[in-house]
Amino acid sequence: MNVVVTGGAGFIGSNLTDDLLASGHQVRIIDNFSTGQRPFLSEASSHPNCDLFELDLFTQSECLLDVIHGTDIVVHLAANADVRFGWDHPGRDLEQNVVATHNVLEAMRTTGVRRILFSSTGSVYGEASVIPTPEDAPFPVQTSLYGASKLAAEGLLQAYAEGAGFEVTIFRFVSVMGARYTHGHVVDFVRKLRRDPSKLEILGDGSQRKSYMDVSDCIAAVTAQLDRDHRCEVFNLGVDDYCSIAESAGWICARLGVDPELVYSGGDRGWVGDNPFIFLDTAKARAAGWETHFSIREAVERTVDYLVEHPWVVDLQDAP
Amino acid sequence: MNVVVTGGAGFIGSNLTDDLLASGHQVRIIDNFSTGQRPFLSEASSHPNCDLFELDLFTQSECLLDVIHGTDIVVHLAANADVRFGWDHPGRDLEQNVVATHNVLEAMRTTGVRRILFSSTGSVYGEASVIPTPEDAPFPVQTSLYGASKLAAEGLLQAYAEGAGFEVTIFRFVSVMGARYTHGHVVDFVRKLRRDPSKLEILGDGSQRKSYMDVSDCIAAVTAQLDRDHRCEVFNLGVDDYCSIAESAGWICARLGVDPELVYSGGDRGWVGDNPFIFLDTAKARAAGWETHFSIREAVERTVDYLVEHPWVVDLQDAP
Repeated sequence: MNVVVTGGAGFIGSNLTDDLLASGHQVRIIDNFSTGQRPFLSEASSHPNCDLFELDLFTQSECLLDVIHGTDIVVHLAANADVRFGWDHPGRDLEQNVVATHNVLEAMRTTGVRRILFSSTGSVYGEASVIPTPEDAPFPVQTSLYGASKLAAEGLLQAYAEGAGFEVTIFRFVSVMGARYTHGHVVDFVRKLRRDPSKLEILGDGSQRKSYMDVSDCIAAVTAQLDRDHRCEVFNLGVDDYCSIAESAGWICARLGVDPELVYSGGDRGWVGDNPFIFLDTAKARAAGWETHFSIREAVERTVDYLVEHPWVVDLQDAP
Repeated sequence: MNVVVTGGAGFIGSNLTDDLLASGHQVRIIDNFSTGQRPFLSEASSHPNCDLFELDLFTQSECLLDVIHGTDIVVHLAANADVRFGWDHPGRDLEQNVVATHNVLEAMRTTGVRRILFSSTGSVYGEASVIPTPEDAPFPVQTSLYGASKLAAEGLLQAYAEGAGFEVTIFRFVSVMGARYTHGHVVDFVRKLRRDPSKLEILGDGSQRKSYMDVSDCIAAVTAQLDRDHRCEVFNLGVDDYCSIAESAGWICARLGVDPELVYSGGDRGWVGDNPFIFLDTAKARAAGWETHFSIREAVERTVDYLVEHPWVVDLQDAP
């Protein structure tokens, strides 16, 4: 297939691109390199079946038609994925996650490309009243600009499925980890411990419960949907387990061979809009044949190993 | 109180403005007059407590700060309310309902105004699996650009409640009817019957079931929330009943004293994205003390009476 991957220079996007190329697909990468990394494309960019288009989906939507024309499917991963610092730039989620998605959908409609896979998030459930949270959980209340923007994008995709004949697959991810992971608590902890292995400051009281998934398991779920026919389907993706931030900190320290004093900032959440308990019911994806191969602890440990081997990733700025 | 009413020259907005002025409030109307009507403000515009600001929330957001500064609350009603013709201009809902709402919220945050009431819609439930549909119905799937845009705006408001300390009330309306109603099936039917009282063409097979509410009942629900303290509440609003389009057509014909041949276009819905059954569970609003005073038939008949008395409204273009 001829696949467009938006955000193809990013963490998940570059892993997906490598996988698609290895399977014989043609890939057109779109990335604005705001958080995407050129080294992640070191193999892909020289592959004969891969083309790279450096453009911004919000400001350069007029360029999208040529890129999307003649392809079979768009995997729309490009996004501002910065949940924690949303309030430092309240328009960014709207521009990069909502308007950009509209621009992708309109370019697809105009060029007759009608199949799209989309990376949403478990954050759209807000503080879920049902845990583990299924896809048809009660109507959510948003708690972050990021979650609100992803919910908005989901709604746009669904409207295009109903009104423009699109075939839509929406994935609601837990946090994804592994090779090329560039932000979030594992990167933060590794960075802090490299500076001072005797002390680790942790946001919140350590009790926040999260679920993680290795990027290879995530990619397998995405590629399994490339040729599925349906109007609109939503799949939660995540491991069948959760951990506390304190547990994750323990795994990270053990993997790094350090034994720091843990200093908690206090409170039941890391920042405003942080969700103290994310755990998704993934029965629907599993019933469709998907399975995870890495546990939550293995996902965290593989991330630590990658960061130790690629220290330049740890030096990337997390904050805006 | 000093109240900003966006869309204050529109159907619901002008009725709300008149009500607020009669109760002694100060009102600042914002309207771009894309669908708002100056005659609807014939009394309000000369009232000493009313100021009118003609500006567009999408293109002129820089003007919002001065209008919102120093007020107590924003009632955000301005929207592209054209569900049926959304696909003729796929960017309009995004611009006028999503980005415009973001612009209002940012202007409020900047000026320190933190209370907002918002007109959402029962369309956010898509084709609901639970009917009558409560506020915590299963996670919806959008079926129209309009519904998607209102869901997106709801999410933004909720994120501002959580992250910026806003006090948010979201109303999910069924279709509202009554004085100054300018679009939708009652206007369409009255227009067609004025041209040819012997025949009435009806979209769909007439079986689509809808719920309506008189605008005075809607306004009462809104004004009751002006001074309520809460982080974020969502209320369905509608009558405790529904009717078929065929029934409504019968009431309209009887009120007009005509007996046309009814010609159905066929199919179970009026247009792509039309929801064949909308009926909201309004127990939450009723438990908070709200009640409706007009039945669904009375709401339809009062609309017909208004249109007969104000034929210029029927001449307004419904289609874009």
